[in-house]
Amino acid sequence: MVMKVYGAVLSTATMRVFATLYEKDLKFEFIPIDMPAGEHKKEHFLAVNPFGQIPAFKDGDLKLFESRAISQYIAHVHADEGSPLVCEGKPMATVGVWLDVEAHQFEPLALKLRRELLYKPRSGMATDAAVVEETEAKLAKVLDVYEARLSQSKYLGCDCFTLADLHHLPAMTSLMGTPVKKLFDARPKVSAWLADISARPAWAKVLAMRNQQ
Amino acid sequence: MVMKVYGAVLSTATMRVFATLYEKDLKFEFIPIDMPAGEHKKEHFLAVNPFGQIPAFKDGDLKLFESRAISQYIAHVHADEGSPLVCEGKPMATVGVWLDVEAHQFEPLALKLRRELLYKPRSGMATDAAVVEETEAKLAKVLDVYEARLSQSKYLGCDCFTLADLHHLPAMTSLMGTPVKKLFDARPKVSAWLADISARPAWAKVLAMRNQQ
Ligand SMILES: N[C@@H](CCC(=O)N[C@@H](CS)C(=O)NCC(=O)O)C(=O)O
Ligand SMILES: N[C@@H](CCC(=O)N[C@@H](CS)C(=O)NCC(=O)O)C(=O)O
Repeated sequence: MVMKVYGAVLSTATMRVFATLYEKDLKFEFIPIDMPAGEHKKEHFLAVNPFGQIPAFKDGDLKLFESRAISQYIAHVHADEGSPLVCEGKPMATVGVWLDVEAHQFEPLALKLRRELLYKPRSGMATDAAVVEETEAKLAKVLDVYEARLSQSKYLGCDCFTLADLHHLPAMTSLMGTPVKKLFDARPKVSAWLADISARPAWAKVLAMRNQQ
Repeated sequence: MVMKVYGAVLSTATMRVFATLYEKDLKFEFIPIDMPAGEHKKEHFLAVNPFGQIPAFKDGDLKLFESRAISQYIAHVHADEGSPLVCEGKPMATVGVWLDVEAHQFEPLALKLRRELLYKPRSGMATDAAVVEETEAKLAKVLDVYEARLSQSKYLGCDCFTLADLHHLPAMTSLMGTPVKKLFDARPKVSAWLADISARPAWAKVLAMRNQQ
């Protein structure tokens, strides 16, 4: 039975799962969830993710949610297919650190900026310039640490591309259409890393799904 | 060489690492970091955690940070000592989901409430009653999902105690001294789980370290 992904092509958390599946060259069935219609809060979806958020995932009888837990599951179960995405042995501990850096240092700032600079204008709300300024300053500091890290290591977790890099792609890509792009452009190692991981064929497939919408 | 934990006994993120080490019955050296003096932003500490946050961790040459990455490292490397803390095989995927639930659904709300109800009053700032009300409502919904989960499973991740439970202890315990406690008390499975995991000898040792301060 083929794996099932419940989500939406515009959802950054769903895109994380798609990217992992494409990196692994795995077949899957995509079941679109109609968020504007509130489908993610209906009984049948809550049976897969009781928190009522996308994505959700099924592999046979196994039901999972939380995008990063799903991608880690896929990477482990299909360790020998497609791109490795994890490192074995000691470096794994360091990949674990950078997986958590994405989740705790990067994403909260990226989502705050996306809300101010993309969602609010689209929904006719005013962007709060003070929030943008404060959050950009925090993100700049985080990216300084990334710049230093990427001067020692080809990728964040180790010298090969792993989930620690991949997990950044959806939110980071959405910021490229905003003035926040300058923070990435100003840092040579960060912008080379961003260009490199954005050019992966698996990521191009995720963007193609989005553009077909 | 003994493992080193850099942090503070009052820091919830540091307590997560202590709890893991005590569960595993491992010796470690604790190196207190003087946060009020800004030691976490000084060169020598930034060499271990470039993000300038506690905890940080050393095991021989390996330097780690992010409390959950540290606890997962300890649990994997010392899999056969003390309490298991992880499940092997298929249930691991589900433990992974609940590890992420703590990080993404529980902690942000718990920290927001702690800030309003504990830090602000201590620092002479006014609690924002609207933020408390809104955040309590969100936490109540999260705990409803926990209540349902704990009706099917003895612990969050599987039928044995894992890091997915342990990671909740520090922030959850700090809320027990606030009116938020009522949200836990109102849910029988949640309050039985909380009583159970709070009674673990390893957690008592963490609280004893804090009380010796
Ligand atoms: N931590 C979750 C976040 C999922 C999430 O926030 N999904 C959004 C769409 S990208 C959603 O479902 N929002 C609706 C809601 O929270 O009610 C994950 O990584 O899967
Ligand atoms: N996600 C980090 C959070 C660490 C954290 O926020 N530590 C606090 C103390 S509990 C800290 O160092 N705050 C000082 C700062 O952020 O500058 C982890 O789990 O280790």
